[in-house]
This record gives sequence, C-alpha cells and structure tokens, in this order.
Amino acid sequence: MSPFLDALKGRPLERFPVWLMRQAGRYMPEYRNLRAKARDFIDFCSNVELATEVTLLPERLLGVDALILFSDILVPLQPLGVEVKFLPGEGPLLESPPLEDWKEFEPSKVEYVFETIRRVKERSELPLIGFAGAPFTLGAYILEGKTSRDFKEVRKTFYRERDRWHLLMEKLTDMLIAYLSQQVRAGADALQLFDSWAYVMSPEMFGEYLPHLRRLVSTLKELHPEVPLIYFFRGSGHLYRLAKEIPADGFSIDWTLPVEVALKEFPSRAIQGNLDPSVLYADKETIKSEVEKLLQRVAENRKTLYVFNLGHGLAPDMEFEKVKYLVEVVKRFKF
Amino acid sequence: MSPFLDALKGRPLERFPVWLMRQAGRYMPEYRNLRAKARDFIDFCSNVELATEVTLLPERLLGVDALILFSDILVPLQPLGVEVKFLPGEGPLLESPPLEDWKEFEPSKVEYVFETIRRVKERSELPLIGFAGAPFTLGAYILEGKTSRDFKEVRKTFYRERDRWHLLMEKLTDMLIAYLSQQVRAGADALQLFDSWAYVMSPEMFGEYLPHLRRLVSTLKELHPEVPLIYFFRGSGHLYRLAKEIPADGFSIDWTLPVEVALKEFPSRAIQGNLDPSVLYADKETIKSEVEKLLQRVAENRKTLYVFNLGHGLAPDMEFEKVKYLVEVVKRFKF
Repeated sequence: MSPFLDALKGRPLERFPVWLMRQAGRYMPEYRNLRAKARDFIDFCSNVELATEVTLLPERLLGVDALILFSDILVPLQPLGVEVKFLPGEGPLLESPPLEDWKEFEPSKVEYVFETIRRVKERSELPLIGFAGAPFTLGAYILEGKTSRDFKEVRKTFYRERDRWHLLMEKLTDMLIAYLSQQVRAGADALQLFDSWAYVMSPEMFGEYLPHLRRLVSTLKELHPEVPLIYFFRGSGHLYRLAKEIPADGFSIDWTLPVEVALKEFPSRAIQGNLDPSVLYADKETIKSEVEKLLQRVAENRKTLYVFNLGHGLAPDMEFEKVKYLVEVVKRFKF
Repeated sequence: MSPFLDALKGRPLERFPVWLMRQAGRYMPEYRNLRAKARDFIDFCSNVELATEVTLLPERLLGVDALILFSDILVPLQPLGVEVKFLPGEGPLLESPPLEDWKEFEPSKVEYVFETIRRVKERSELPLIGFAGAPFTLGAYILEGKTSRDFKEVRKTFYRERDRWHLLMEKLTDMLIAYLSQQVRAGADALQLFDSWAYVMSPEMFGEYLPHLRRLVSTLKELHPEVPLIYFFRGSGHLYRLAKEIPADGFSIDWTLPVEVALKEFPSRAIQGNLDPSVLYADKETIKSEVEKLLQRVAENRKTLYVFNLGHGLAPDMEFEKVKYLVEVVKRFKF
C-alpha cells in the first residue's frame, strides 16, 4: 500500500512516488521553529521529541510518500571516540583518535536515534527510511576534519597509507552494519546509504573501495532481506559502472548521469533521483516542465522501479512553496 | 623538435612529453621568493619582469617539455569592468556590473600579459602555452562572486534566466576570442582553455553550453590553424561524450575518466592528463609505479597524441622534490 516500497520492489504503480533528501530542513519555517527550541545542532538531533516532530513534518506539509529519520550522518561517529562539533554558520569539525584507539561501536550510546524511529513509527503510516553515511564519505570527513571541496586528505591517505585507508573503511563498515541493523530493528522500513563525497574518487579508487561497500550491503541484505536498501552517490556519472556491483535494491543518482543511462544500466534495480536541485530556484512553470520532462523520460522506459527525488539535498535558501509545488507536480503525473 | 607539439599534432615520439598544471606555483621555493617581491597577487601577475621569471622557472628546475604563461584566469575580466580582488589566504572575490554595462574588451588593457609572452619567447626555446578560463568557469566565478564547492549561482541562473545565462556565455566567448588571439600574436605556441568547474554541470546543461565552446574553439582554429588548442575540463568522466563535439586538438582530462576510455573515444585527438594529483603525496616508489602504470596503459593504445599531466593543478603543500621526481619518471619512460 506504499508507492515508495512498491517502486523499490518493482511492483506495479499508479504513479511514481516522491520524497526529497533533506525534506525536513532549514528551508521550512516549521523546522526553524523547532530548531529554535534546541541549544545546538547536536542537541537538536539527539532530542527524541524534537527529532520525531521534525521527521514527521514533511508528511503533513509536503505530502511525500516516505519519511526519512531526522539525524546527521556524523552521529554514529561519536560512540567510536570521534569528537564532532557543529559551529553555527560553519560545517562540522571532527577530531579522531588514532584508529587503534577507536572504541567498539555500542548502539546503546545513540539510543535516541532508535527511540526516534520507534516514535515516528507510532505516529505515521508512511514508510520510514533509516540512513547512514557510507564508509568513504564518513572516512573523508574523519581524515579531513571538516567539510571540503575535494577531500584531499582521504585521497592522500589512499596513496600514502593504503593499509590504514582500508582499516578505516573496514572499521566504519563494521560500525555501519551494527548501526543500520539497529535502525531496522527499531522499525526502519528502508535504508539509504549516503555517499555524498564519492565524486572525488577516480574509478580506480572506487574499485578499491567497492569490497567494503559490497560487504556492508550484502551483510545488511542477509540480515534484513525484506528491507530495501538504496545507495546514494554523488559522482554517479563516472562511477555507475562500478556501482552496479553493489547488491543494493536502489541507486539514488545525482544529475551527472542521464536518467536513461541509469535505467538501462540498472535494469532490475530501482533508480531514484536525479533532478538538479537548482531547478527549484526557477519559477513554477520551469519547475513543472523540468519535472515532467524527467518523469516522461523515465516513463518511456519503465513504470515502476523509480522513485522521484533530487540529485542532492534541498538547500536552506529554497522556497517552501516551490518545494511543495514540486511534490504536487510529481504526484499529479500519470503514466 | 618539441615532443609537446609533436604529441599534439600526432607526430612520432621517442617518449611522452610532460608539463604540469600550476607547475610554477607556491610549492616551489623559487616561486615564493619571487612572490615576496610583489605587493599582492594582482601586482605579481601584472609585473612583466616577475611573471616572465616565474613562467621560466619550471624549465630549469623541473625540465618540463612546455612552459605555460604565468597569469590568472580572472585577469581578462577586469577590462570588462568586473572588479577582482585577491585577499591573502582566501580565494578571489569578484563584483560584476550588470551585463549591459560591461565594457568592450580591449586587449591593450592587459598588455602586460602579451609582453610577458614576448619576453618568455625571447628567453626560452620551449613551446609556450597561452591560456584562459573557459566561458562556463569564468561565468561561474562571476555569478558566484567567489570560489565555491558547487557553484550554485551559475546553475540557478541557468534555470531562472536562461537568456541572461546565454548572454553571459556569449560575452565571455567574444572576450576570449580576442584575448587568446592576442596571446597567439604575441607568441603563444599552443593554447589551453581551463574549464575547472565544468564538473558541476549535468549533461543537459553542458549540451546547452556546447555551442559557445564550439564557436570559441572553431573561431580560434580558423584564425590560428597552426596553434594547437587543448580543452581542460573537470568532470571529464561524465561529460566526455559531449566534449567530443568541441573541435579542439587536445583534451586534458581529470581522474574521473579512465584513460583507456579517453583514448578510445578521442581516436584522432590528443589526450592530456589524467593522474590524480594526490599521488604526489605518496612516497617516491608509489609515484613511480602510479606514473608508469598510467603511461603503460597509454602506450598499449598509442605512442603519440598523448601528453603527460595531472588531472588538476599542483597544490601549495606538495613537495618540490617529488614533483621533480615525477617529471623524471615520465621522461625516463620509453615505449
């Protein structure tokens, strides 16, 4: 009874489902009101009441077909011993002890995440997406210590200390298996792995990274065969050939890969995305025509195994009314 | 008698030629000494004596096969009326008047660029590469006003004000034809267009941009058929199919495109690049093996129409000794 889960499982659809990355975010006045109740961003994410409210907002305000847990990809790093700070107006700052000194990941340290999932499930019928950062993206943050354009440190370490690079990916993969499994046990109906910085990798580097991703995804699929798993990766345009080897149910692509290529190259897997989010800065007429053009291109190829989304998350300076309109346009589109 | 020009023209080679983007840069102690003689970065670029010395450094210090004019891609924007400031430790800041108020480009306003070319040509036998930023990359800077990870403004304008976007590209193309022609008249032996931010474009956006690039390159080729022109683009991995339509002699690729694909897709044109510059942070043994692996992959496909370079420029924190070693490794590689 959920077009989102039906699309991921290849079941017949009456229309394409829609949700948006960062659908509960700063562009939404109601989000900003809730945000004002928390001391800082970490407090905001770890407050079960607030995180539950935020997660639920897009159901009522946008009418999307899935909710995504409100949290941050850096949350599960703290139990490992990595210090994470969010300074207002800046990106996150991270400080990691040497890998040998990392603590074992104990899900109970981030119990608030699982409790938020349980509360959301009590209050909504919509499928809830649990999520985490993919090992490369988390590793890139850890080695860089902050956000960056080209995440040079993780590429440096790849060429300088290959064993340490693999150990980092391995430890993150172990943590992610435990963390995401616990999200499923708490009630997550689907999972999404965010590889937001994958685009800085050459195909060669991605090829070395692939075994970690395969282990992560195949272990999760063995443990929770019924829970669809989506792999989101920036850099889809140059990495899709290798990404095919990941046993994910769905692939969320950015705007660098023409959707026809994705549909052709992943014939039995769901595709999610890939509208350039900057379309949302245009007028409604342009938004409508760009969305319909994309959906038309999809519908000419398949009528399931597709979930509408953007190629990246919503930005704080987007207009709420236009985001809402975009969701309406997708929902009105009939094959 | 120049392996660089021979490679671009597809003539037989004894070894692959090598030069490096940003080969005269802050990683070099001699560069920093010369830099200390100028008040600020703009003064440094516009001082003919200093710019000539800097341009020449890599011949003596690295033994490269080509020199590239020392300048900045933002230099020719000032005669148009765009204000450009470089604050120490930050990227550039730009302020542009409305497009209707742009001045006509007068090459004489940046005569120091052409005078630098003439002086370098008097003092070196090496081929000299003139260069400029490609219209998209310059337009992205102008609309953003500063450097950025995702250059959202130029993508926003694309969807909001398509006509203004095209007018901007058109005006920049006009300027670039005049500017680069003047560089050739001053003595440049080859030209390189830098499209450093092309990677933020979807294939659709690149397709709309293509006519401007085609006009720019074909006009320059008509005016100066003997001068090889290289198009450098970040985002090669997802844009190469469309880039093939640019009538350039050479394509300088980043590390997102496997070199074999480039060699196959551009059978009659030169390929330049594509080593991930972060290889230079590794030890010498790794540098040697990575360079030789790349050259071997090229040599299995062709023995001309290839110029060694990195996928992007050298960074200030690289070690001079390793850069020098990299050049030696390329020069020692025999087919």
